[in-house]
Amino acid sequence: MDMLSKRRTPIQAASHERILRIATRLFAEHGYHGVSAREIAAATGLNIATVHYHTGGKRELYMQILRSLYQEEQAWVTGVLDHVGADVVKDAQALKSVLGELLDTLIELLQRDLTRPRLYMRRWLEERDELTPFEAELSIAVYKPLYELLAQAQQVGTIRADLDLNVFLRSFYWMLYGYFVTGPVDWTAWWGDPNNRENLQAFKAYLHMYLITMLGLAPTA
Amino acid sequence: MDMLSKRRTPIQAASHERILRIATRLFAEHGYHGVSAREIAAATGLNIATVHYHTGGKRELYMQILRSLYQEEQAWVTGVLDHVGADVVKDAQALKSVLGELLDTLIELLQRDLTRPRLYMRRWLEERDELTPFEAELSIAVYKPLYELLAQAQQVGTIRADLDLNVFLRSFYWMLYGYFVTGPVDWTAWWGDPNNRENLQAFKAYLHMYLITMLGLAPTA
Repeated sequence: MDMLSKRRTPIQAASHERILRIATRLFAEHGYHGVSAREIAAATGLNIATVHYHTGGKRELYMQILRSLYQEEQAWVTGVLDHVGADVVKDAQALKSVLGELLDTLIELLQRDLTRPRLYMRRWLEERDELTPFEAELSIAVYKPLYELLAQAQQVGTIRADLDLNVFLRSFYWMLYGYFVTGPVDWTAWWGDPNNRENLQAFKAYLHMYLITMLGLAPTA
Repeated sequence: MDMLSKRRTPIQAASHERILRIATRLFAEHGYHGVSAREIAAATGLNIATVHYHTGGKRELYMQILRSLYQEEQAWVTGVLDHVGADVVKDAQALKSVLGELLDTLIELLQRDLTRPRLYMRRWLEERDELTPFEAELSIAVYKPLYELLAQAQQVGTIRADLDLNVFLRSFYWMLYGYFVTGPVDWTAWWGDPNNRENLQAFKAYLHMYLITMLGLAPTA
């Protein structure tokens, strides 16, 4: 697949990009198993053989989409964490500011393209299959650096000792992705616009409070 | 629909129950728009006209399922909240114990039947449509009593004043439903069994901590 991508001409690359974009939207709307190669071809206006030629087929196409989404996410995460010195885990204020920056970064990434959380969540609702180990590897690569930072901070006593970091992180991601799927409650619609400025401010403020309060980094009132 | 249900003979009621059970599983697997009346009929071994006769059609059937799921949830919630005296909102310890009981109740309800969170979540991923106001009404009826209890406690200063209760509750439900859809992370599979005893204990402990810490009901360390 990577060899193939190196051999692409500009026109081939443009077709490949276009198929990827259209397929991403379809997978986000219907899930991996809810979209056929035929439907992807129809949506792009190409025939199945052409789509197969450009992408290697539905399975390869989905893997390319996932790899690209997770690599982008990882680049944003490491863009924040790579600047972090070893001492940050010993300093509650410094840790708080790194986590705050990371949170703002993740929110910015998600609000740019609402298909990402929908695509992930659709997939989480599907049965485990032969793609599961591939996805696990990609997603763990994104979350592991953050987990390790927190684990170190916990070890030296900067964050509370009785916190289960796995459950903490998993819950954090459900809140984050969930918000960008349905938006906030407003007690009349049970749905809201996640990109509405006021909603987004309230949600950001809440997640900041969640991080510092649950980790025990907040000065107590 | 309610008139129809009053007229059902025991045999009709049994058919109706069976169609409901099978359709619930299908909707949880594929979403409301992902299942046709024809597929429901095929899965029950009946023809479309018979399914229509028993249920009133796909839309009515889905509404009956939702009504029954939300009414059950509401009964469990009010089963806890109806015992609560007016003074509980002024007493941090009493409030903590009510919320703990409510949490255990909701977890017990969810772990009994994993199709419930899957069905809700599938639906949340779909576009808003003519069923949305109906669902909003049902779900708000479940969450409003809890919201009002918390709002009163906030007003009298028992829980922290700077907490956005809407975002707090919405995030709580995402954590809760999300856990019962994918289970916990274990860093090798990115999926786990939500009903595994150890996982469930860790998750329950975490949600208890979340409630009391975020609401400011915890004695600070």
